Amino acid sequence: MAVNGTEREAMSRALELAARGPRGVNPQVGALILSPDGEVLAEGWHHGAGTPHAEVDALSKLAPGAARGATAVVTLEPCNHTGRTGPCAVALIEAGVSRVVYALDDPGVASGGGAERLRAAGVSVESGEQADAAHALIDGWLTAQRLGRPHITVKWAQSLDGRAAAADGSSQWITGPAARADVHLRRAQADAIAVGTGTVLADDPALTARDGDALYPNQPIPVVIGTRPTPSDAAVHRHPHPPLFYDTHDLQAVTADLHARGIQSVFVEGGPTLASAFIAAGLADRVLAYIAPVLLGGDRLALTDIGVASIDQARRLTVTEWLPLGPDLLAIARPADDPLSQNEGTD
Amino acid sequence: MAVNGTEREAMSRALELAARGPRGVNPQVGALILSPDGEVLAEGWHHGAGTPHAEVDALSKLAPGAARGATAVVTLEPCNHTGRTGPCAVALIEAGVSRVVYALDDPGVASGGGAERLRAAGVSVESGEQADAAHALIDGWLTAQRLGRPHITVKWAQSLDGRAAAADGSSQWITGPAARADVHLRRAQADAIAVGTGTVLADDPALTARDGDALYPNQPIPVVIGTRPTPSDAAVHRHPHPPLFYDTHDLQAVTADLHARGIQSVFVEGGPTLASAFIAAGLADRVLAYIAPVLLGGDRLALTDIGVASIDQARRLTVTEWLPLGPDLLAIARPADDPLSQNEGTD
Ligand SMILES: NC(=O)c1ccc[n+]([C@@H]2O[C@H](COP(=O)([O-])OP(=O)(O)OC[C@H]3O[C@@H](n4cnc5c(N)ncnc54)[C@H](OP(=O)(O)O)[C@@H]3O)[C@@H](O)[C@H]2O)c1
Ligand SMILES: NC(=O)c1ccc[n+]([C@@H]2O[C@H](COP(=O)([O-])OP(=O)(O)OC[C@H]3O[C@@H](n4cnc5c(N)ncnc54)[C@H](OP(=O)(O)O)[C@@H]3O)[C@@H](O)[C@H]2O)c1
Repeated sequence: MAVNGTEREAMSRALELAARGPRGVNPQVGALILSPDGEVLAEGWHHGAGTPHAEVDALSKLAPGAARGATAVVTLEPCNHTGRTGPCAVALIEAGVSRVVYALDDPGVASGGGAERLRAAGVSVESGEQADAAHALIDGWLTAQRLGRPHITVKWAQSLDGRAAAADGSSQWITGPAARADVHLRRAQADAIAVGTGTVLADDPALTARDGDALYPNQPIPVVIGTRPTPSDAAVHRHPHPPLFYDTHDLQAVTADLHARGIQSVFVEGGPTLASAFIAAGLADRVLAYIAPVLLGGDRLALTDIGVASIDQARRLTVTEWLPLGPDLLAIARPADDPLSQNEGTD
Repeated sequence: MAVNGTEREAMSRALELAARGPRGVNPQVGALILSPDGEVLAEGWHHGAGTPHAEVDALSKLAPGAARGATAVVTLEPCNHTGRTGPCAVALIEAGVSRVVYALDDPGVASGGGAERLRAAGVSVESGEQADAAHALIDGWLTAQRLGRPHITVKWAQSLDGRAAAADGSSQWITGPAARADVHLRRAQADAIAVGTGTVLADDPALTARDGDALYPNQPIPVVIGTRPTPSDAAVHRHPHPPLFYDTHDLQAVTADLHARGIQSVFVEGGPTLASAFIAAGLADRVLAYIAPVLLGGDRLALTDIGVASIDQARRLTVTEWLPLGPDLLAIARPADDPLSQNEGTD
């Protein structure tokens, strides 16, 4: 039995509801309960870790027995595991729901299998309705699930010849306004922005995402990595989000902690030491190199050492786009050994 | 009186004749002498420095008096100076030519003014016929005239992060086949190809322009710059042209000598020391940076020091093209302070 028009509309609504929830360690999910004749009985969404899942949130708004013979429309496959809440598949079965329409399969090892459990209990199940939109909504969460850590972008700006600054350290305006605006837009799309103590001490950056002088509505959480203390009057303390300080060089430990905090994407903005350390550790899912049409020479390199001794150890990249930004060029790339790189141009 | 169809045809033929002459310190020029009723009386072209100019070459094929009342069709304005040969303007006047049609004005300070001299003697003069084709033919010569030295292209291949090799010096196949084929095609378009002794000693390059395994018909003259001797069994000795060796670091002296030899374009292929020295000396009219999508880190830089101490001394470039070549990218650029850079995108 195919998905009908009422169910399709209900899925669009469920996606809107899902987006109300916070991005975090749990995915954003929305759900509707429809009566057998298509009337909306209840709406629900997931409000964040430790709160009921979307289906249970919706069911909780109904009197006992009110969902008997109803249809549940959910943006993600109902879960099958007992966490802080019971399995949603069981909750739906016990409420007497006779049909479930969902968008996206649950990729979790522990949580998957809900559809099978529902079918085994005689519930009619349809999957894939508006799967693309559901996927786009929880893209970051899905990546984080697959990697077991946040998705990491390592960004730097460089001269054509790979320098981050002139010999005396001056580096203002290597790249132009279009490139800098692009950086701020991408900062706003990240959950966190990371720099080393070297950059904090040298530049005292605000680490906010700005549209001209205004702040973008979404601000990445500032992260400072390194053992030297950040001055108490540093600009990062005036960021809308309290900064996270990691007094370590252990980037695995840092990213594991960020993951545990529900951070799904990290924008590493340098400087050269930190950027090189992330690349050397194999912790760069995406590289953004902003290349300015200028030659500098000298020893202020945009990347320092990344652990490559011989050419066969070179970190090969798949460039998905060479994007001109005014006079500058942005190379958007990912490791060539990334499974996604088998799918050219679909970043 | 406008240029007629017969004269137009004659100019096309004159351009063909011009191309028979060698590229060198003098421009390639062709000429035809037409009878008053449009019959071709004689053809001529310039055979190289020290030989007669094209007009005189054509006139020399006629009996005395045979050019009286004739029309001369020439690809370059007849010259007005007395060099190894007398002024062509005077030769045409003395031969009794009553009309001259030419393509391109002579840009030379000493040689220009021929058209004026002809007009003053009552000769009818038309200029600009097929000027574009005539310009394209002697492009390199015109550039060399303007600069007083050959046009210099500095080329290098680099990783995205500006390295020419991995830490141990290995660098085979940083760029891919499309980039390497492009390099060979551009070598074939240059009059000379220059490397430092460092590259000769490290790589023993052939410095030929190759289309697969075959040699291109035009081969650049190999030039080796530096004080260390080139081994007698070096591959460069087997080049179709005998190599030029310059036992100096004085690049002004080298390019002046190349200019005096009639070399109009030089392709500087490195290595890093020589490329940086050319850029530091302001002797790079065009930069070709072949960028491979790979990260190397380490200290084998594609450019070393180019004399930039602070960001305001940065060598700013105008990139006329970011050209994808397979997985690689070629940045084609010239100095931003080059007068041509005021004309964006017309390289
Ligand atoms: N071109 C660009 O895109 C760009 C971007 C940002 C900054 N910059 C420039 O970069 C310069 C600062 O360079 P930088 O390299 O010192 O800055 P950095 O990379 O921000 O900071 C380096 C510091 O990071 C800490 N760190 C954390 N994890 C590490 C690890 N795994 N390995 C090594 N160090 C680790 C260390 O701090 P502790 O010593 O405190 O432990 C190290 O000294 C500034 O001049 C700035 O303007 C350029
Ligand atoms: N990535 C690329 O595109 C590329 C291209 C070519 C070569 N390479 C690599 O580059 C490496 C060789 O590097 P390299 O820098 O030694 O080679 P190089 O630039 O070819 O040679 C350097 C030598 O050039 C001479 N020289 C001439 N004029 C000079 C000047 N004005 N200033 C300074 N030196 C001048 C000096 O020789 P004397 O000491 O004899 O006087 C100097 O030692 C090789 O490993 C090669 O594979 C890479």
